Amino acid sequence: MIEIGKYLEQEKAKIDRALAERMPRSAPAAVVDAMRYSLEAGGKRLRPILALAVAETLGAEDESIIDVACALEYIHTYSLIHDDLPAMDNSDLRRGKPACHRVYGEAVAILAGDALLTLAFETIACYGSRAGREKRAIRITGELAGAAGVEGMIGGQVLDLEAEGAALDAAQVDKIAIMKTGALLRAAVVCGAIAANASEKQIKVLNAYASRIGPAFQIIDDLLDYESTTAELGKPAGADQILSKATYPALLGSEEARRRAEALYIDAVSALDKLDRPSGLLKELANKMIYRTR
Amino acid sequence: MIEIGKYLEQEKAKIDRALAERMPRSAPAAVVDAMRYSLEAGGKRLRPILALAVAETLGAEDESIIDVACALEYIHTYSLIHDDLPAMDNSDLRRGKPACHRVYGEAVAILAGDALLTLAFETIACYGSRAGREKRAIRITGELAGAAGVEGMIGGQVLDLEAEGAALDAAQVDKIAIMKTGALLRAAVVCGAIAANASEKQIKVLNAYASRIGPAFQIIDDLLDYESTTAELGKPAGADQILSKATYPALLGSEEARRRAEALYIDAVSALDKLDRPSGLLKELANKMIYRTR
Repeated sequence: MIEIGKYLEQEKAKIDRALAERMPRSAPAAVVDAMRYSLEAGGKRLRPILALAVAETLGAEDESIIDVACALEYIHTYSLIHDDLPAMDNSDLRRGKPACHRVYGEAVAILAGDALLTLAFETIACYGSRAGREKRAIRITGELAGAAGVEGMIGGQVLDLEAEGAALDAAQVDKIAIMKTGALLRAAVVCGAIAANASEKQIKVLNAYASRIGPAFQIIDDLLDYESTTAELGKPAGADQILSKATYPALLGSEEARRRAEALYIDAVSALDKLDRPSGLLKELANKMIYRTR
Repeated sequence: MIEIGKYLEQEKAKIDRALAERMPRSAPAAVVDAMRYSLEAGGKRLRPILALAVAETLGAEDESIIDVACALEYIHTYSLIHDDLPAMDNSDLRRGKPACHRVYGEAVAILAGDALLTLAFETIACYGSRAGREKRAIRITGELAGAAGVEGMIGGQVLDLEAEGAALDAAQVDKIAIMKTGALLRAAVVCGAIAANASEKQIKVLNAYASRIGPAFQIIDDLLDYESTTAELGKPAGADQILSKATYPALLGSEEARRRAEALYIDAVSALDKLDRPSGLLKELANKMIYRTR
């Protein structure tokens, strides 16, 4: 078993390379520069790594899984660009660097986000244009669109904006976290499984794992925001408090929030015991997502 | 042969019904309301009608073409919502009604656009989930994403924004028109053909038709903007001049611009003579697109 820190580094490098290779060439420079800027702004590549790790767990040799990995990162990056816009969370910093709209202006940032979302589906169409992959590509398109759309990420962002300053209960905070962050993390695992030709039973088990690590990851994110300084976090510290967003730690206190994340983590790794494949890698990944400092 | 005015009315009603039926149900009301508002704001449904007309011309009975038609209208509507944003064209009116962001605010308007783009691909995935349609759905996804992306609509919008106040020549204005408007109109025709199981030869002929009506349509659009008052047009008159955008009439004068549109129209309908199917409907549609008053 490869050491997890090394594994993450190596997979991140693979994804960074694939993202760089796939940048559109014959397109207006302004928008492509903005897309590249945000794609290269230091993301952890968590979603694509999850997809690659699932495929590896299922013993899929197919190199094409990298297409699916890139599509996931495009969708994640588009969502960050749009979330940071002045009309949304109005964030000047992202991952320690000026937000896309601060560098390229609002118009180009909006278009760069639109372009990354579009590129995600174009990439899956390209993946699916090889014989034998059509059904998987259609299903992956459906999963990605469902996770990104009004019943997933976009819906979560709407609820999050509406919730500013409102008094939410834990069930409402849960719902927002599941839609806004959980849906795409779940899709990363499920799309990795589909691309790897998983059985329906395998997909079901992996779905149970994925639907727990998403909310757990969000709780830890909120905790880090709640407790960190700007320098550590790479975005304005306590940003959620400034926008008076209801978060787990604000609602439950730091300790109870952490306990909740850990309970979800335990459920996630337990679910993997039903997988008919060695699941050490996915367990270590979940561990890494929960027990992190940033 | 059905009378063209009646045909357009009947097809528009069919598309309006399909769009209404397909609105997401279990999603936050704010964003769904904004999506519906813009979808129902009086569009002519030109792109979906083109797709339906192509399928009819090719004798395709398959009712599923309506999925492709809806996806085209989602992408068109998303592009209008984002184009009207304060950071882009800053338009308060669209089709005679307040722009989406004037009614729902900027944040929800951005998200409603994102959601419509996402829904377009989800709709094609749904279309492709029926056995026998997978290959066509993949190809349609690729066509739509290509037409909507940085080498199509988004790229055209970037060039258009960059061109504000700049002195462009006819070749540059052509390029913007082809990317910004032409690409999706071309995709409407080509996707209709793919969904109708067209031969490669038929697709080639229809592509020649489509790649001429797009720019012709854009010239007429510019002319109408150039010559109209706000009340006639449903958007602020002379908006292009206010933003000092380079348009065909500004560059060539009204008469020369109209001559150019008519030459493109003649090329478009001539191309159809190579189609092995009766092409009266597509010719009449092209005629209607050019000889219109708004």
